[in-house]
Amino acid sequence: MLLSDLGEFGLIARLTTGGAMRPDVIAGPGDDAAVLACAPGYELLATCDAVVEGRHFSRAIATPEQTGRRALAINLSDIAAMGGEPLFALVSLVLPDDTTVAWLDGLYAGMRAEASTYGVAIVGGNVAATSGPMVLDIALLGRVASGHALLRSGARPGDRLCVTGRLGAAAAGLLTLAAAPPERVPAPLVESVRTAQLTPQPRIAAGRSLAASGGVTAMLDISDGLAADLGHLCSSSEVGAVVDAVVLPVDAATREVALGYDRDPIELALYGGEDYELLFTVPPADESIALAAVRATGDLAHPIGWITEAKDGIQLRTATGALQPLQLRGWDHLRSQPVSGV
Amino acid sequence: MLLSDLGEFGLIARLTTGGAMRPDVIAGPGDDAAVLACAPGYELLATCDAVVEGRHFSRAIATPEQTGRRALAINLSDIAAMGGEPLFALVSLVLPDDTTVAWLDGLYAGMRAEASTYGVAIVGGNVAATSGPMVLDIALLGRVASGHALLRSGARPGDRLCVTGRLGAAAAGLLTLAAAPPERVPAPLVESVRTAQLTPQPRIAAGRSLAASGGVTAMLDISDGLAADLGHLCSSSEVGAVVDAVVLPVDAATREVALGYDRDPIELALYGGEDYELLFTVPPADESIALAAVRATGDLAHPIGWITEAKDGIQLRTATGALQPLQLRGWDHLRSQPVSGV
Repeated sequence: MLLSDLGEFGLIARLTTGGAMRPDVIAGPGDDAAVLACAPGYELLATCDAVVEGRHFSRAIATPEQTGRRALAINLSDIAAMGGEPLFALVSLVLPDDTTVAWLDGLYAGMRAEASTYGVAIVGGNVAATSGPMVLDIALLGRVASGHALLRSGARPGDRLCVTGRLGAAAAGLLTLAAAPPERVPAPLVESVRTAQLTPQPRIAAGRSLAASGGVTAMLDISDGLAADLGHLCSSSEVGAVVDAVVLPVDAATREVALGYDRDPIELALYGGEDYELLFTVPPADESIALAAVRATGDLAHPIGWITEAKDGIQLRTATGALQPLQLRGWDHLRSQPVSGV
Repeated sequence: MLLSDLGEFGLIARLTTGGAMRPDVIAGPGDDAAVLACAPGYELLATCDAVVEGRHFSRAIATPEQTGRRALAINLSDIAAMGGEPLFALVSLVLPDDTTVAWLDGLYAGMRAEASTYGVAIVGGNVAATSGPMVLDIALLGRVASGHALLRSGARPGDRLCVTGRLGAAAAGLLTLAAAPPERVPAPLVESVRTAQLTPQPRIAAGRSLAASGGVTAMLDISDGLAADLGHLCSSSEVGAVVDAVVLPVDAATREVALGYDRDPIELALYGGEDYELLFTVPPADESIALAAVRATGDLAHPIGWITEAKDGIQLRTATGALQPLQLRGWDHLRSQPVSGV
């Protein structure tokens, strides 16, 4: 069935019927705006992130379910990066003529599955047509206990620099989707990094646990790559940093896949992007509490460096112990490819 | 200057610097999410609406300032339709390669002017690139006193049907932009309807005043056209309606322009869309209070019909007094042209 058979309002009715709501949704889809309750003692978090077909996803590579999960996950990751609890999503679809209703049903099934996993209600949205590539734009609202949002701007010299999960896996997954993986890389490792690329796991529980732990001074999620996002953190906090290349959490799957393509795993970890892990800073006295707070959620976090004075810049400590300036290149969404100097 | 010279983060810094904030914005642009205070006693309103170049706007016709004002205004209109006060906007830009920084500066100047007029802070957003037409997607948050949101679903048989402002002007304006206006139509009238099309006025003050007046049973804004949007109201409220064609508020500018193109002004008022006026229902006993509440804001509202039982359907009372079924056709964003039966 084509979209034009269903029409805008038929499509909206089809997509918005039966989604899970929350008790604080007073009026969900179907009116001019959603009506939502604000709990006392909380502040609201609001973010949006769009994905464009051909740049951020491909209907030829990802299933509609994966595409839906991922579009919501990258927004959930922004709420996680504030230490927040996600609540409400608005979904804006900009659709080319060749979009099928079956594909959109799959997209919504994926978004609803992801929303349900994290307790989010899809409370509204918009549908428009385009002659160009598909755009999926989600605005996500969340909350955090008043005064407890973790900003990018609180890092101080001497703080430890830590990251959740593993780095470079999403970039390794992209390699396996762009060109057939070398035969010597075991299939389960390929599958592992493809999953990291196609359906990243937003670190909601870890982010909330870190916010509750009290010691974290700054946090953001890694979407553009460790180096670029560390640059954002240092710029906001007016500090420098040292990243210890030896202890970067690069797992076996990422390492094997990277080497299979003659790529340096550390390069993928530093510049690959799209890992959607949390990068945070914590004073040394609070480090063990913060790492335990992440462990308590079933995730892991690792120290990967420390914060310095701004005048020292952002440096990489190599395997020989030498310090060298860390290039802050990463993904630039206007240049469509990794660039330097952003 | 081209966008690629500035880069994503350069552009974001340029666009987000210096915008007016509100005291309840705890953290605005520049972090993973905005942090916003929720006032006790209020419910949150959330809506989003995207415009696509070539479908909803044209860089060849509208100035960047007009485009920015309009993109925000159509979202403000959704908050107005709930009786709400707009607060915070997230702006998602999906930009083709030929977008210039100068054009975006103009777009933001327009959005900021509109935001400032209505007390709105632009608290975040996103930038992505596309090979297709430009997309401007805004998510807008507002608030309304708890329990006072005006939904579409509360109309009851016997209620009066009223509308703010004038109808058909935006459609008349579109006629003058699509084909040169006939010479016999005075230039000020052409200008009046063009303004209605290019920079519609969201009825924020009227909407809030109506919500405060207490008597209004249902409200929505007219984006798809009076007939189509009345269809939405009647469907949500499970009622029918009669629209009195004789008293539809069609002003001299709309009438003269329509006749200049050999179009029926009443057709434009019923099916034209994009007027962004408020359509509301009120019990007869509260009608004069509601109309006075709108007058107090400097706008005008007019009774144009009444609500009936659902079984009577939606009817048009013509100049002869005859009742005929009102076609519910209007603008369908997936079909790109006025269609019937939506």
